[in-house]
Amino acid sequence: MAQKVTIVKIGGNVIDDKESLALFLSDFAGIKGHKILVHGGGKKATQMALSLGLQPAMVEGRRVTDEANLEIVTMVYAGLLNKTIVAGLQSRACNALGLSGADGNVVQAHKRIIKEVDYGFAGDVDKVDAELISLLLQKDICPVFCAITHDMQGQLLNTNADTIAAEIAKSLSEDYEVELVYCFEKKGVLMELDDENSVIEKLDTVLYTSLKEKGIIAAGMLPKLENCFLALNKGVRKVIIGSPSVINEYRQKFTTLSL
Amino acid sequence: MAQKVTIVKIGGNVIDDKESLALFLSDFAGIKGHKILVHGGGKKATQMALSLGLQPAMVEGRRVTDEANLEIVTMVYAGLLNKTIVAGLQSRACNALGLSGADGNVVQAHKRIIKEVDYGFAGDVDKVDAELISLLLQKDICPVFCAITHDMQGQLLNTNADTIAAEIAKSLSEDYEVELVYCFEKKGVLMELDDENSVIEKLDTVLYTSLKEKGIIAAGMLPKLENCFLALNKGVRKVIIGSPSVINEYRQKFTTLSL
Repeated sequence: MAQKVTIVKIGGNVIDDKESLALFLSDFAGIKGHKILVHGGGKKATQMALSLGLQPAMVEGRRVTDEANLEIVTMVYAGLLNKTIVAGLQSRACNALGLSGADGNVVQAHKRIIKEVDYGFAGDVDKVDAELISLLLQKDICPVFCAITHDMQGQLLNTNADTIAAEIAKSLSEDYEVELVYCFEKKGVLMELDDENSVIEKLDTVLYTSLKEKGIIAAGMLPKLENCFLALNKGVRKVIIGSPSVINEYRQKFTTLSL
Repeated sequence: MAQKVTIVKIGGNVIDDKESLALFLSDFAGIKGHKILVHGGGKKATQMALSLGLQPAMVEGRRVTDEANLEIVTMVYAGLLNKTIVAGLQSRACNALGLSGADGNVVQAHKRIIKEVDYGFAGDVDKVDAELISLLLQKDICPVFCAITHDMQGQLLNTNADTIAAEIAKSLSEDYEVELVYCFEKKGVLMELDDENSVIEKLDTVLYTSLKEKGIIAAGMLPKLENCFLALNKGVRKVIIGSPSVINEYRQKFTTLSL
């Protein structure tokens, strides 16, 4: 039987608050078996940019990564956040090892092709080196990924953390029983955006298509869910969307996805 | 016969200048066999601190690492510099993987004990995990160390890169034939500080003691050389001090140390 690996993705709601992060890291360190953490950026990079007198670069209302902002996200994501998380996990007896996509060439990407918008140094993932990740897992090391990749030509790239998590999950699904957990600020996918009790506990592609058509699921949730269903399609065993406490407290409500 | 591993330490004179760094990375990528890079910080962290309105914290003329400066060195060393170097080596077909001491618990340290001066979050190295480094080397991965360690209690620590290089060298010397190369701004240890042609090509402990007593070797060179002789004492096969080009161009002058 294939070994299980749990891949957890966290974002700003966990990272931006010291106490939330400490609580989460304790829960995460308690997960049995192989595990991988993928973290997004949070507000720190924006704060840093503003402190340095930079304006977040925006084109048509969407954030783009110019050279100055790439430098900042590399510092904040791969440096401050990644190493703070790694040291925090080490203090909780979890043998964490931080990685950007450039490290060991573990996540290869390319600079996003310019269509209507030039997103600057944004990366779209081409390939994940499952062999290197598996090597670390087999040594009881927990890889901790930040949302920075590279193009193999020396260019670092700012990359969506949800996508990195999904791509890692897919790459490992041939050899492992993969559970992918997206932690975010809500308890799960909601029927009513303002009602935390309206968690959709089982979401399959039929229901998803119907809710999308009705406009009940919209905006930021769409790419997140597309990523999830794609992962399930590629052999990932289970995808869960919920609040950070979902990883140790299964009594609460959360959304489980299926095809 | 033990396999050879070359450990190269670079500092600000290489890192601060884009062209020097590019040239160095090409030379480094060309080193045959197992290799490890250890990099210091350079001016970027100081520039960043000043841009953020922080003054470098100094006590009795010596730099100390307060909390705000620790955050900056973590961002700059472990984030920006480490990932820039790793991506640069990847583009040169060298499979680099960046590490702080917290990653995989590879360099354990403790916060420097307060004697006359409180150096803040400065780390003194306790232990290097040679097994993890060897695992990476055997997979043809080139570890790239920044000068950040941790205390296993969740605290990151700013640590001298010369010391990290020496400690890694010592830890590997049981299983490998280790060559340790310190690159700095001079061609080697000089008889006359202002004369680049006065390189001492062979420096053993007898000559070192005599030159130290005469005050010819002084100041910043002393702790560097103490580190080197300690490494030789612990089984490191060869220690070289020279300019960055020493790693590919052995015709020029440089200093080789022996006991």
